[in-house]
Amino acid sequence: MTVSASPRTVYLDNNATTACAPDVVAEMLPFFTEQFGNPSSIHAIGASVAPAIRTARERLQNLLGVAHESEIVYTSGGTESDTTAIISALRAYPERREIITSAVEHHAVLTVCEHLARHEGYKLHVIPVDGQGRLDLKAYENALSENVAVVSIMWANNETGTIFPIEHLAQMAKPYGILFHTDAVQAVGKVPFRLSNSAIDMLSLSAHKIHGPKGVGALYLKRGVKFRPLFRGGHQERGRRAGTENTAGIVGLGKAAELAQAGFRDENIRVRSLRDRLERELMALIPNTIVTGDVEQRLPNTTTIAFEFVEGEAILLMLSRAGIAASSGSACTSGSLEPSHVMRAMNIPFTAAHGATRFSLSRDNTEEDVDRVIAVLPGIIERLRAMSPYWSSSARAPAEFQPAYS
Amino acid sequence: MTVSASPRTVYLDNNATTACAPDVVAEMLPFFTEQFGNPSSIHAIGASVAPAIRTARERLQNLLGVAHESEIVYTSGGTESDTTAIISALRAYPERREIITSAVEHHAVLTVCEHLARHEGYKLHVIPVDGQGRLDLKAYENALSENVAVVSIMWANNETGTIFPIEHLAQMAKPYGILFHTDAVQAVGKVPFRLSNSAIDMLSLSAHKIHGPKGVGALYLKRGVKFRPLFRGGHQERGRRAGTENTAGIVGLGKAAELAQAGFRDENIRVRSLRDRLERELMALIPNTIVTGDVEQRLPNTTTIAFEFVEGEAILLMLSRAGIAASSGSACTSGSLEPSHVMRAMNIPFTAAHGATRFSLSRDNTEEDVDRVIAVLPGIIERLRAMSPYWSSSARAPAEFQPAYS
Ligand SMILES: Cc1ncc(COP(=O)(O)O)c(C=O)c1O
Ligand SMILES: Cc1ncc(COP(=O)(O)O)c(C=O)c1O
Repeated sequence: MTVSASPRTVYLDNNATTACAPDVVAEMLPFFTEQFGNPSSIHAIGASVAPAIRTARERLQNLLGVAHESEIVYTSGGTESDTTAIISALRAYPERREIITSAVEHHAVLTVCEHLARHEGYKLHVIPVDGQGRLDLKAYENALSENVAVVSIMWANNETGTIFPIEHLAQMAKPYGILFHTDAVQAVGKVPFRLSNSAIDMLSLSAHKIHGPKGVGALYLKRGVKFRPLFRGGHQERGRRAGTENTAGIVGLGKAAELAQAGFRDENIRVRSLRDRLERELMALIPNTIVTGDVEQRLPNTTTIAFEFVEGEAILLMLSRAGIAASSGSACTSGSLEPSHVMRAMNIPFTAAHGATRFSLSRDNTEEDVDRVIAVLPGIIERLRAMSPYWSSSARAPAEFQPAYS
Repeated sequence: MTVSASPRTVYLDNNATTACAPDVVAEMLPFFTEQFGNPSSIHAIGASVAPAIRTARERLQNLLGVAHESEIVYTSGGTESDTTAIISALRAYPERREIITSAVEHHAVLTVCEHLARHEGYKLHVIPVDGQGRLDLKAYENALSENVAVVSIMWANNETGTIFPIEHLAQMAKPYGILFHTDAVQAVGKVPFRLSNSAIDMLSLSAHKIHGPKGVGALYLKRGVKFRPLFRGGHQERGRRAGTENTAGIVGLGKAAELAQAGFRDENIRVRSLRDRLERELMALIPNTIVTGDVEQRLPNTTTIAFEFVEGEAILLMLSRAGIAASSGSACTSGSLEPSHVMRAMNIPFTAAHGATRFSLSRDNTEEDVDRVIAVLPGIIERLRAMSPYWSSSARAPAEFQPAYS
């Protein structure tokens, strides 16, 4: 298959990745060619690059409300930021042998934590969520202690968009001297941040989720937080992340941050209303359908809708043929037929979880995009259900599960 | 300073980084915009990207003589590849508590090894080199044993260009079941490879040293070699390197590999003759000058020349003002006034090591570039020496150190 994104393609998979903004690409370009220098060099070609890296940092600072430029460390993306934060905390506090995370984290966090539990003997607390994806605060509170080195809990979930009360969670961890890390890969650009005024110690983000390039991200590191680098060698990033800087990528990340901030209020309002209309109309047109997650505390751009008695993969393929790109949760797990760990953590019934389909919008989307989905999806679900033995046998019975939203 | 590389700039710092080839940039561009999909997605926009990642892998395979596509893992650059290889070997063979490396490795290797020795109790063998930068084979042989988990020795040195007998070293390690890793960041594109026919288990490379983009590299992993990923989570790279693929960067790396292979023979011959002429004429024009490293076994593009009784930093600044970019060894250590660990390992006398200046060429250089250096550098050295108390007091005495080459 070598179909590429034609203008007719409706792209609703922005939580998997976004298109680079044209202004991002334009700002990056010179750093491949004329301004290709290594910023560590002392000659003019190298030195001329350093200010661009500083500008990018300022732009990120502005978006995140970060007080000091030294609090931002560039990385190769969300996965590196997550891994670095967790491993660093454990190395910095070797006497603390417990980790807290949630059942709905991205695999970049969950797999690392599980590996550390299995192979390095850490005690892992995996905090559950309820049927609407809300964190079990009681379980979280019980897990907190001075044995815990690090909490790593995401700001917003990549599948459902559910937002956790991160600032509150960070405040709760503080009396125990625990380092608090949050994976904000999906939250950046979609919710406001003021990290200078926060109890959060470390935060991960990734450029390609905010119309920047893939392969670059950042780790926010509050001043004074003990840190142990993952990559040692060169003195780049104040010795906290060795390796020749990805200058073009960093410039692209900075520009993406600037654009996210510039359109912050208006675009998020517009995207939210597109998402709400999409959701409302699909719910009205398609029976036996569940909106998953916490519809109150939710990213403005995301909805994951579970269509009972159909396979998510089949929906996606038929949507793709109709020129619509959506997803069945985290892209990293697509290809598998199991419902995602997020759906399982919320106890979404299997008959529905299998049909969970994520629509994630961005400022690139339009009313016409929403119209297109509304025009084709009801027919797709109907056809698929007609082929499903479960659907016919249940004979349009009402779902055993109470929809969160209808 | 915001001077950028004008056409008049003579860039002789290609071991620090290279300019992206125009064809590399052209092939990367679509992957920021039209083909921006996440290759893990099942819809057409994502799926359309996967073939480009495969093509890049084939091109790298061709350049390196790698038999199986599964043997190449994309990373964020040389530092990540080096770190991953070393840590993986130690985790894979936890009962082996020794590491072998050389005294002249890049900091990306040396610092990791020293950290592991200091903080995780590994015994570290740092194999010395002689005055010409040649590895002490006797010391290497003595260090080999079944207690050693990994050897990490570079293919070619970034400061002097000295090439180690890597295949021989790898063969020597084999009977002990040691994993053999080589940092080939400086060797790729400049020496021929046939890894399918080699005892090397792991090899690091970085795109930005071969006219590709910064922030992307690869780790060669021989089939069957035990591996423990540094980044866990997504199933990218067959589970060996989680994180959304840097598709544009990977495509750029692949194109850079293809270009390196296409011009391999002719360009390396041309670059070598430029380098040789530069070296010959500078040696003839400037007294008390030492070519460092092994002039027989050497990369075609590199020469580090030590000018006695002058400060390398001063030379670089005056060259930069004359529109010539060179370096004083590894860019990561510039800014410091100490001679580099490579110069110290070779026992280059301090009076000379301080004036060590690296000229590293690439296929972008011309005869005119060499002419420019020859025209200005003798005057620069003369002026600097006239200001040096050491130079006047030694009254142009012959160097206490016997030049390796004159
Ligand atoms: C919540 C979350 N965390 C981490 C990641 C990983 O980021 P990256 O792909 O940049 O490594 C992603 C996306 O893939 C994500 O959605
Ligand atoms: C020999 C050697 N190894 C490793 C590296 C690190 O590569 P990167 O800058 O891509 O991380 C470099 C260059 O910086 C190098 O010259």
